[in-house]
Amino acid sequence: MSDLLWPGDDRAGDLFSDAAVLAAMVRVEAAWLHALVVREIAVPEADDDLHKLIDAGDAARIAADAEAGGNPVIPFLSLLRERLGERNGTAAFWVHRGLTSQDVLDTALALCLREAVARLRTDIATQITALTRLADEHRGTPMAGRTLTQHAVPITFGVKVVGWLEAVLDARAGLDVPLAARLGGAAGTLAAPAALAGSARGALDLAATTAAALGLPHRIRPVSFTHLADALVSCTDAWGHIANDVLLASRPEIGELSEARGGGSSTMPQKQNPTLSVLIRRAALAGPALAATMHACAAADVDERPDGSWHVEWASLRTLARRTVTAGSQTADLLTGLRVNADRMAATLAAARPGIDAEQARFAGHTDAAYSGAADEIIDNALARARETG
Amino acid sequence: MSDLLWPGDDRAGDLFSDAAVLAAMVRVEAAWLHALVVREIAVPEADDDLHKLIDAGDAARIAADAEAGGNPVIPFLSLLRERLGERNGTAAFWVHRGLTSQDVLDTALALCLREAVARLRTDIATQITALTRLADEHRGTPMAGRTLTQHAVPITFGVKVVGWLEAVLDARAGLDVPLAARLGGAAGTLAAPAALAGSARGALDLAATTAAALGLPHRIRPVSFTHLADALVSCTDAWGHIANDVLLASRPEIGELSEARGGGSSTMPQKQNPTLSVLIRRAALAGPALAATMHACAAADVDERPDGSWHVEWASLRTLARRTVTAGSQTADLLTGLRVNADRMAATLAAARPGIDAEQARFAGHTDAAYSGAADEIIDNALARARETG
Amino acid sequence: MSDLLWPGDDRAGDLFSDAAVLAAMVRVEAAWLHALVVREIAVPEADDDLHKLIDAGDAARIAADAEAGGNPVIPFLSLLRERLGERNGTAAFWVHRGLTSQDVLDTALALCLREAVARLRTDIATQITALTRLADEHRGTPMAGRTLTQHAVPITFGVKVVGWLEAVLDARAGLDVPLAARLGGAAGTLAAPAALAGSARGALDLAATTAAALGLPHRIRPVSFTHLADALVSCTDAWGHIANDVLLASRPEIGELSEARGGGSSTMPQKQNPTLSVLIRRAALAGPALAATMHACAAADVDERPDGSWHVEWASLRTLARRTVTAGSQTADLLTGLRVNADRMAATLAAARPGIDAEQARFAGHTDAAYSGAADEIIDNALARARETG
Amino acid sequence: MSDLLWPGDDRAGDLFSDAAVLAAMVRVEAAWLHALVVREIAVPEADDDLHKLIDAGDAARIAADAEAGGNPVIPFLSLLRERLGERNGTAAFWVHRGLTSQDVLDTALALCLREAVARLRTDIATQITALTRLADEHRGTPMAGRTLTQHAVPITFGVKVVGWLEAVLDARAGLDVPLAARLGGAAGTLAAPAALAGSARGALDLAATTAAALGLPHRIRPVSFTHLADALVSCTDAWGHIANDVLLASRPEIGELSEARGGGSSTMPQKQNPTLSVLIRRAALAGPALAATMHACAAADVDERPDGSWHVEWASLRTLARRTVTAGSQTADLLTGLRVNADRMAATLAAARPGIDAEQARFAGHTDAAYSGAADEIIDNALARARETG
Repeated sequence: MSDLLWPGDDRAGDLFSDAAVLAAMVRVEAAWLHALVVREIAVPEADDDLHKLIDAGDAARIAADAEAGGNPVIPFLSLLRERLGERNGTAAFWVHRGLTSQDVLDTALALCLREAVARLRTDIATQITALTRLADEHRGTPMAGRTLTQHAVPITFGVKVVGWLEAVLDARAGLDVPLAARLGGAAGTLAAPAALAGSARGALDLAATTAAALGLPHRIRPVSFTHLADALVSCTDAWGHIANDVLLASRPEIGELSEARGGGSSTMPQKQNPTLSVLIRRAALAGPALAATMHACAAADVDERPDGSWHVEWASLRTLARRTVTAGSQTADLLTGLRVNADRMAATLAAARPGIDAEQARFAGHTDAAYSGAADEIIDNALARARETG
Repeated sequence: MSDLLWPGDDRAGDLFSDAAVLAAMVRVEAAWLHALVVREIAVPEADDDLHKLIDAGDAARIAADAEAGGNPVIPFLSLLRERLGERNGTAAFWVHRGLTSQDVLDTALALCLREAVARLRTDIATQITALTRLADEHRGTPMAGRTLTQHAVPITFGVKVVGWLEAVLDARAGLDVPLAARLGGAAGTLAAPAALAGSARGALDLAATTAAALGLPHRIRPVSFTHLADALVSCTDAWGHIANDVLLASRPEIGELSEARGGGSSTMPQKQNPTLSVLIRRAALAGPALAATMHACAAADVDERPDGSWHVEWASLRTLARRTVTAGSQTADLLTGLRVNADRMAATLAAARPGIDAEQARFAGHTDAAYSGAADEIIDNALARARETG
Repeated sequence: MSDLLWPGDDRAGDLFSDAAVLAAMVRVEAAWLHALVVREIAVPEADDDLHKLIDAGDAARIAADAEAGGNPVIPFLSLLRERLGERNGTAAFWVHRGLTSQDVLDTALALCLREAVARLRTDIATQITALTRLADEHRGTPMAGRTLTQHAVPITFGVKVVGWLEAVLDARAGLDVPLAARLGGAAGTLAAPAALAGSARGALDLAATTAAALGLPHRIRPVSFTHLADALVSCTDAWGHIANDVLLASRPEIGELSEARGGGSSTMPQKQNPTLSVLIRRAALAGPALAATMHACAAADVDERPDGSWHVEWASLRTLARRTVTAGSQTADLLTGLRVNADRMAATLAAARPGIDAEQARFAGHTDAAYSGAADEIIDNALARARETG
Repeated sequence: MSDLLWPGDDRAGDLFSDAAVLAAMVRVEAAWLHALVVREIAVPEADDDLHKLIDAGDAARIAADAEAGGNPVIPFLSLLRERLGERNGTAAFWVHRGLTSQDVLDTALALCLREAVARLRTDIATQITALTRLADEHRGTPMAGRTLTQHAVPITFGVKVVGWLEAVLDARAGLDVPLAARLGGAAGTLAAPAALAGSARGALDLAATTAAALGLPHRIRPVSFTHLADALVSCTDAWGHIANDVLLASRPEIGELSEARGGGSSTMPQKQNPTLSVLIRRAALAGPALAATMHACAAADVDERPDGSWHVEWASLRTLARRTVTAGSQTADLLTGLRVNADRMAATLAAARPGIDAEQARFAGHTDAAYSGAADEIIDNALARARETG
């Protein structure tokens, strides 16, 4: 999967592609079918291997047929049943029995999101490694602190880096959103599963068995996807600050930081653009509206399944997940290869004098040479937090 | 092109697909190359037919290579030059000469948006035909007016329909946003074209010739794409109101309107869901955040080309255009096939009495049977406007 | 009116204050009451001067009482009728007769918005004066053009300024959104006015007379307020680009532009912050979400008056209008006082050599000293447009 | 504090009013001044009671003066120092010494937000009491389940209520966002406090003492306010679903639920509008854009203090906090007074037959009369969760 208009999108690989979503839907149906047999609701012959029945080649057809019923599960299921029926009529009878479209689709989305979170954790770990190394190496590298675009007081680059690090740690903590298998039946009462199982308890056991097979807890109404959407945007927020700082410091008039590899131009041979930072900033700019879309859907929720707001969530989650994963990978690369020009930092600081020392000058008798305050302690605290929460 | 997670997306066909964007980029380069020859800047042999040099099969490769420079024009151009060079070295030397990436991409986006607007106009014309027919047929069909969910006073269905119609006419008027060819060179001064043409005037003529070949006016800095984005969202706003009204009136407890064809369920055999309205409402819910994204980019503009906000626009415009075109087509179908149950409207109104007559009762001696006020005149005015602005 | 958390808000004066909204509501009721008499529906004694009956001191009480009915018109009207009744029972009988809450509130909002637009036009005129002067003075002031944060090719400051100017002219053109008096009665059929006037034509005349007295056209369903909201955000978009460029150029490492008066710090004596630009950028960052809120409301429209989305519009329009007016005034000040440091621009350009000349070097034999292309023509075209559309 | 254009706003009382923000700023300065004395950095005479030096009457003046420096802390501090200096020159010398504007304002915002969260917890407790009562009372009240606007399968009202309840419990859990005192000095290194205290450790102790006096933990860079903004919107999301369901069920054609007190109309005597639900839905519609604004600010963060995005946060947090608190109070009232018409629910269900039984009919031999599946277990689980997490 790639996207001409979102350079770098191929970093997200097959995540949330039509094929991946179909595969996740197959996994949900397979887990349910197997649970029906395990729980002795369906006969043993109903069990079957669904995994090769639907593949990427079916996506266009299922997508086209999805409009009639308003969601892709209905044509997906027709095709699945048809193919399954050719070899195992019993399985075709039992497949999806007791479920509703939303059970399948929302649980499939949870599986795709789980993969997105796993990929993010890997890239964030790489980021943290790079950030802790930078903070430690540059704990004593002096530079000009800047507020409201103007030189403020001296800081060290290490302190700036742990500002980035703390935000990345906060963002990572936010990813602990409980994803769940939504298995509730047509209107969230498990009525059909209970009819099949012969009891409410049997229906709950059936759902629990299915969810366990998928490695997810079971909830009739899982925590809203908005929570994970917010967590994803909090990631791009944190990376946006890093990218903004790198973009600024990459300006030739400042030149304190640069990317490992500059990007070229279609007409200007000299150009060395900070491309990764540009693309990360892009994701940060675009993220908030996507999370807002998810909240707008949640706020429009009505009935046991809403008339349109549910339907917005699917593509919004995919876009948000792919873009966040892409930006996470780009940020890992950016930080790993970041070049620090301590000489330029020192030169900026020297040129900023005496103005930048004006606050310090108010504390006659209390000054030290670096005026870096508790920089070391702040850095150590952040590094300790990074180690402890790893 | 189709999208498993946005049912109905295939209605937008190839609009803004990677292949379509590449084709539009080829058109821009071809127009510029031809203009270089026409204006006698390049030698006649430089003219060549570029249209088959890049096709859909190149999209994945170009997309993957776009990250290095941050935009797809750079790898697109490498490939174009390479293939062109194999048969016409002179053309390969002149192609893109004097342009910058943004000239090519923004002008290509304008071409894709022009097609989107043309498709919208066609579907809106169908909507207007259906709406004027409904308004005329039902100018005297009484029903309960509703405000804040409660019965207010009697209206006619024709009045409700012209409320929809006026909003659609307003939305159509908003589509008159001037799209333009952005041809300004590396930093918007036409420096390279002027160097090539030997004069500023020559550079402007070159740009004008190129733009004319594309059927667009020339502007160094075109009107922001935000204006068109707003216009697209104003369309889905208008259709959203229609969809919301149909969804409400399709509820079994009301039953005053229904879609021509109901959508099914994966588990409930009786279901006849108002699927088109659900999907139109979906687009209306998702639209505002997309236009807001475009404005956020405009507000972050800086320098002669910004560091990230430009890059957000491309995919945002595509998503917005495809979703709006899809919803426009769905709304045309919805309105063309809309079933009006005048009996249920009358029954609701009867059941709403005497409460719904309470306002009228305050005007003793002034009442008429229908209490429909200026409904006829309001309808006639709207129908006249639809005819005049067609 | 002032706002501790939105510095500069007092520039918007009383615009859209609770008192101003109440005064606008009084104007609407007064125009309607007068029209009832003029059209000989009400007896001459019903005419009365309403303007001093409600004032700012009533705002808190009316606001508190507004929750019961969900809008401020109901308690406003109770108070108005009560006070009017003490001196003129006939007027108290006729006031508001035939109108609905939304008629009064939406038309009052249109009056407040008209004032906002008028104020914006004044400040934009000042901006245009300053921009045309800057463009003309600096048409030949060379500086480094910047794309994606890096030096691109030389430009002149005049060209940069007309880039700002064109966007301001586009934004001004967008303000031509037709505001209207919404006078439709309880459900938009003018049923009560027709009952009062004895005919549909009489009701339409009554509405037209009222609207004319307010200086507005009459529409049953005015163009959605989203259109004006979009226009307001397009203003802050344009100013945002200016502010971003000034903020960047005010950085001490660049120093090419500065505000007339820098802002101080609570702890750092040397600080000269580009405060106006900071506050303008603030408005640009906050604008898109406000317009999106208006579109979200439009997209949620249902029935003859919706159940919540109408209610969001009021405060959203006020916030958007006040912030835009404040930012417009600040931008006028910023541009009028902007200090241009041509020496620093020249120094940056010199330091950027030879890299910044790399594109030009590709056009051997075509070069001129400044490589400023069609800068003069581009400037002249923009200045001409500013004059013509003034 | 009240707001004519946001009916119900007075429920939020003085929360986040200009006066309340000033009072919180005084508390921060007072805690810091006291800590300076406690830590023996300042002489004992520097300690003073600041609490009556600034009051609501100063708000307009401070607000007007805030534009010059871009934030309200600077003029606030001038006034505070001036008044303090009249009686205690030593205190006036020491007040704010070592702090920066952002320390004071962000910590003051944290104090205001803490109060908002406390108020929300109280109202949410009331909501949970009402919800658990409703769920328990109506665990067996049959009604029609609805999906995509159409009748799906039977449910009980109790199951619907615990759907609301689970979302409220999730929203409450989200409020556990760690608020902190931001005390970092001019650029986040505690340089000035370290100079005053004579050591980095002394600076950290000073900050810790100050934070402890305010009842907050200390962080140099607190968790972004976006996290709390998301949590607030998650509250209005949850209440939005409740309001939407009540609004629908309040429609006269359905009539299954109603508010304790209906709202009137300015022209229609019979009207009983579900006003609380309308106003709650309003807050839910408006919330997502406010949280998106906060994220847009976070994504634009740059330097040690950003040039505009920080400034957006203040008013956005206030608006979001007041609206959420207002909606929380309204939802508590709505639920406490909610009237359930079990007869109408039964009648709808009867009228929905046999269609609504179609799924059940597929499970011949497995059916029970109510087809309510695991409704009881689902209700019991939710009630247990409400008790455990109270």
